Amino acid sequence: MTRTSTGKVFLVGAGPGDPDLLTVKAHRLLRQADVILHDDLVPHAILALAGPHAEIVNVGKRCGAKGITQDELNARMIAAARRGLDVVRLKNGDPAIFGRLAEELDALEAAGVPFEIAPGITAGIAAAASLHVSLTDRRTASRVIIVTGHHAQDSHSRKKIDWSALAREDATLVVYMPGQDFAALRDELLAAGLPPDIPAVIVSRASTPAQREWLSTLAQLDAAPRMESPSILLIGRSLARASLKSSPEHSALESAIAFAAELPLRG
Amino acid sequence: MTRTSTGKVFLVGAGPGDPDLLTVKAHRLLRQADVILHDDLVPHAILALAGPHAEIVNVGKRCGAKGITQDELNARMIAAARRGLDVVRLKNGDPAIFGRLAEELDALEAAGVPFEIAPGITAGIAAAASLHVSLTDRRTASRVIIVTGHHAQDSHSRKKIDWSALAREDATLVVYMPGQDFAALRDELLAAGLPPDIPAVIVSRASTPAQREWLSTLAQLDAAPRMESPSILLIGRSLARASLKSSPEHSALESAIAFAAELPLRG
Repeated sequence: MTRTSTGKVFLVGAGPGDPDLLTVKAHRLLRQADVILHDDLVPHAILALAGPHAEIVNVGKRCGAKGITQDELNARMIAAARRGLDVVRLKNGDPAIFGRLAEELDALEAAGVPFEIAPGITAGIAAAASLHVSLTDRRTASRVIIVTGHHAQDSHSRKKIDWSALAREDATLVVYMPGQDFAALRDELLAAGLPPDIPAVIVSRASTPAQREWLSTLAQLDAAPRMESPSILLIGRSLARASLKSSPEHSALESAIAFAAELPLRG
Repeated sequence: MTRTSTGKVFLVGAGPGDPDLLTVKAHRLLRQADVILHDDLVPHAILALAGPHAEIVNVGKRCGAKGITQDELNARMIAAARRGLDVVRLKNGDPAIFGRLAEELDALEAAGVPFEIAPGITAGIAAAASLHVSLTDRRTASRVIIVTGHHAQDSHSRKKIDWSALAREDATLVVYMPGQDFAALRDELLAAGLPPDIPAVIVSRASTPAQREWLSTLAQLDAAPRMESPSILLIGRSLARASLKSSPEHSALESAIAFAAELPLRG
């Protein structure tokens, strides 16, 4: 009796932003949830799918803003489930990719609350689709490396990323939360051995009507404009075929090609 | 007039197998398609979503089987679109992850046929969700490396994978099409510096009712049983918390823990 009256926590991937890119399962869970605890930046069009009686709470932690702590969030999920409610913990993209999922799983397991993970389309995959590129290509990219440029993942140690093992010309590098210090990132990747003419693309708000892209090369990465969050940086030969949606005149692309033509060929 | 009578090719991710893990968009495209050209191993439950008049063709290339060539497949997609039909080219998982997408994009662009990519849940992400693990963890895994163990991606050169840059204890390694030669893979990863006690999990047919898992350590990887395709291998500290669905008695997990306890600690 006690068991059947306990609710369940669903750790759900909201995907990159387009409601059409929710999974069928996530779509149903959102409609049926009693409580939705969501990250910052989940678009209104997705939250609007919730049922009329659902309690919807933004539990996001924007940099610098004073908000709910991880412990408070965990306690809230657990308390709601123990009241018999079905809780959707809605995370941007996929919960298992830079979603701080592990901390929440630990808390749910320790509390003995039943839970389930519903995967989502992660931003890197959505960005590739919108750019008309494959992340792997048997001619140019035999692997995909997913990393974060932002140290929020590791706020205790602020340890430096070792870019040397990531700087491979046969990989597509997908950098989540790349931050704004593109000059430092460029210098580190060039020092690690990536060629200056390798294509680099920043995609802001992938899959939404506000999507913007900026295509260039690693050498010019320091000239990247400030773009709206969430944004993602992709680097690799596989990006050479990227087609831009937000710049029909392809001016950034043309300037990148012109610039690359002036560079000596490497690697 | 000519333009409006041309159909469109949708390169669609079928996800890992569970129809519930299709995106809302993929679900709709499947229902509306005139022609569906699908990979091997797309489950019947997904193909059954097609409309009653859709033409459904398996264009998969099983190893060793004589089938349709890439050129024939490209020609078929293009011809159908030129007849004014909407074509869904349905790929397992996500099209941009080891889906031979680039070749098809080249052909479509060269032919001037309109196309769109609809992303899907890739198998590694579905496997992680089913195992109740996060692929990143700020304590143990700062990056995710996606690679294929199978050389079908690169059948011309059969070049060796350089595992040294992949063998990092702070990464989660996701190996698509890992093949069956787990003894050789274990030896290469140990030689590249990964510790023998690092958790390794094989997930077969992730997200389907036939899902099976085998959890062990890198040192014991050579003892992996033969499991049904498609399967995926995950290696990393983040897998230490994996919970198995298909083995409620957790015997493999217990044996792995007992084995790991006998090993000297490294790294």
